[in-house]
Amino acid sequence: MLTVVLNKNEEKEKIEGFPWVFNNEINSFKGDNIVSGEVVRVVTFDGKFVAYGFLNTSSKIMVRILSRNEEDVIDREFFKRKMEYALEHRKNINFNDSNCMRLIFAEADSLPGLIVDKYANYLSVQFLSLGMDKIKGMIVELLIELTGCLGIYERSDVPVREKEGLPLFKGPIYGEFDPRVEVMENGIKFIVDLAEGQKTGYFLDQKLNRDNIKYYCKDKNVLDCFSNVGGFALHACKYGAAHVDACDISKKACDDILVNARLNNFNQLDVICEDTFNLLRDPKMVNKYDTIILDPPAFTKSKDSVKNAYKGYKEINLSAMKIIKSGGYLLTFSCSQHMTPDLFMQMIKEAAHDAKRSVQFLDFRIQSIDHPALLQSDEQLYLKCMILRIN
Amino acid sequence: MLTVVLNKNEEKEKIEGFPWVFNNEINSFKGDNIVSGEVVRVVTFDGKFVAYGFLNTSSKIMVRILSRNEEDVIDREFFKRKMEYALEHRKNINFNDSNCMRLIFAEADSLPGLIVDKYANYLSVQFLSLGMDKIKGMIVELLIELTGCLGIYERSDVPVREKEGLPLFKGPIYGEFDPRVEVMENGIKFIVDLAEGQKTGYFLDQKLNRDNIKYYCKDKNVLDCFSNVGGFALHACKYGAAHVDACDISKKACDDILVNARLNNFNQLDVICEDTFNLLRDPKMVNKYDTIILDPPAFTKSKDSVKNAYKGYKEINLSAMKIIKSGGYLLTFSCSQHMTPDLFMQMIKEAAHDAKRSVQFLDFRIQSIDHPALLQSDEQLYLKCMILRIN
Repeated sequence: MLTVVLNKNEEKEKIEGFPWVFNNEINSFKGDNIVSGEVVRVVTFDGKFVAYGFLNTSSKIMVRILSRNEEDVIDREFFKRKMEYALEHRKNINFNDSNCMRLIFAEADSLPGLIVDKYANYLSVQFLSLGMDKIKGMIVELLIELTGCLGIYERSDVPVREKEGLPLFKGPIYGEFDPRVEVMENGIKFIVDLAEGQKTGYFLDQKLNRDNIKYYCKDKNVLDCFSNVGGFALHACKYGAAHVDACDISKKACDDILVNARLNNFNQLDVICEDTFNLLRDPKMVNKYDTIILDPPAFTKSKDSVKNAYKGYKEINLSAMKIIKSGGYLLTFSCSQHMTPDLFMQMIKEAAHDAKRSVQFLDFRIQSIDHPALLQSDEQLYLKCMILRIN
Repeated sequence: MLTVVLNKNEEKEKIEGFPWVFNNEINSFKGDNIVSGEVVRVVTFDGKFVAYGFLNTSSKIMVRILSRNEEDVIDREFFKRKMEYALEHRKNINFNDSNCMRLIFAEADSLPGLIVDKYANYLSVQFLSLGMDKIKGMIVELLIELTGCLGIYERSDVPVREKEGLPLFKGPIYGEFDPRVEVMENGIKFIVDLAEGQKTGYFLDQKLNRDNIKYYCKDKNVLDCFSNVGGFALHACKYGAAHVDACDISKKACDDILVNARLNNFNQLDVICEDTFNLLRDPKMVNKYDTIILDPPAFTKSKDSVKNAYKGYKEINLSAMKIIKSGGYLLTFSCSQHMTPDLFMQMIKEAAHDAKRSVQFLDFRIQSIDHPALLQSDEQLYLKCMILRIN
């Protein structure tokens, strides 16, 4: 096994739990075969064991740590154990009335680059690191063995694969099935399209935040912006909203929302197929809604574009604060990791100031608990939610 | 009405929503009668209207803002309107299976110094500002009118009253009733002692966090530390814990826990009447629990003692991380406003490091949504919760 020697004093955060070794942290290699995708042994400058991990010399993230236990043998049993440990957590939390959830969240579950989402009897998976991609066959076998799934769809059609030197791929890799799967989330039926849906099919990370809308929609007139397939909108219907407008710029999304609404016999919902930025500026929207949900796509995926993203977030939040009824509830989200909680809070305060509305702060929430993060790395703590009452 | 003139450029944060004017921010008074407890008019250095508020010249917080609207008349109707607005929020959120909640949270509900908690058909109230204390009769009348309560108990036995120059007081102020009231929280019965219980009788701010334990206790062996009257412990029983140990140093608290457990026919609970610090260090505790709840009293109530408080929080969290089973859940809280989220996170990271345990970060939560805070002042955003899986 190849040995990767760290620079002097570079080991501290790796030992504490940070999951990656960057290329500029490496002093040298010991061994003959430098083969990307293979398991390597990471040691301190003085040769002390630090971790095992997947090597990829063509990525800035040169090692993705698999284990900090020197006794571990990185074999089929090892991956089985890690998977069982991840699945045990999902079994514990036991989401009621839901048959969809994230089963494995990559680095946060010590399975770097592997994402597995369960949709009813089917799995949707992503292989995002070269090392994990190389053992895809074994991983798929283990997933079938441990979950008893009837089919697996691969959604490795994400640009981050290119940084690992991997081609994009999308398609079924186990079983024969219609990729449009009916799932249940918090007692509500949704059609999830494993082939064409966002990410692995649906944004599962909002499950508990969607359910949480129950406190803010009874008998209310609700607007769900960037509604996608209607996640928040349908939850508002379930929890007794008087009327719900679900807005999305995409015609396909609007069609999906209506399909899902009919599937649940929700009749108090209309779709608005329009750009949310425009809709919120429309004078006709003033004083129309008691509750507004703003769950936009990530306006930034890099540190460099945070400034522009900040402007985007501020614009929609300011617009929503201007039009919402007095005493109304604003549920506002950011799924961009670079929009930190502090930045998000600052943006909200500026929007409140510009809108000349006083605001009660009711709640701060993050992604659902089937989407863990590592304590020692906030890379995976990306979703933020603030719930405000606009006076 | 007395006019309070601010120093130059002192108005910005008052206009934006900060609820207090400190004595060193005031330039002068205009008018003859400087009477503490009365409503005053706050203006900029140039004489522009800023706000109305309660004056108290013997407090560092010399004005507590009531309204930023110059048209407002601060009379009975004004207070009625503010109360109705606060009650409307509690009606909206409509906590299921609960007949106890905070109805009015002082500054955050624009009623500075007034705290009103509902326990079944009774109210427990605190008057914490001189201005509010002076109009107590009217406030009590309005509370009876708006809530239809059968009795009101006053719990103005808190040291902060002394800073306002007010004596401490405790006793019934309306109706004749047994101050030991049976309430329902998330479907669980509790006896709340309005006369002798913590704060107004019970820590209502944890309602949703208590209910949230449902994800972490099914078939588990649970330890509830600083259990008080058994809030978390009984919720763990309800949600299917195999066994629950509820620990509290107070004999009375332990008795109360058992009374509450019997009231709900929960048989899988034992009490441990011991100092939590000692209990967690006991070698017999190692690998005993799947889930540990740490909800200590505020270790600090001032900025000066944060360092010592930090040590206290770290000690119990470190001890819990050392003893908990692999894959176990740690639900850890701080109700001290001076222990900021950043400090709390730093403490948790240090504890994980010292305990040599890797940790998955599952959730960050705050106080229940019937305890709002002001967006422009974090004074009332005091409760923090982190939920961790200890590997």
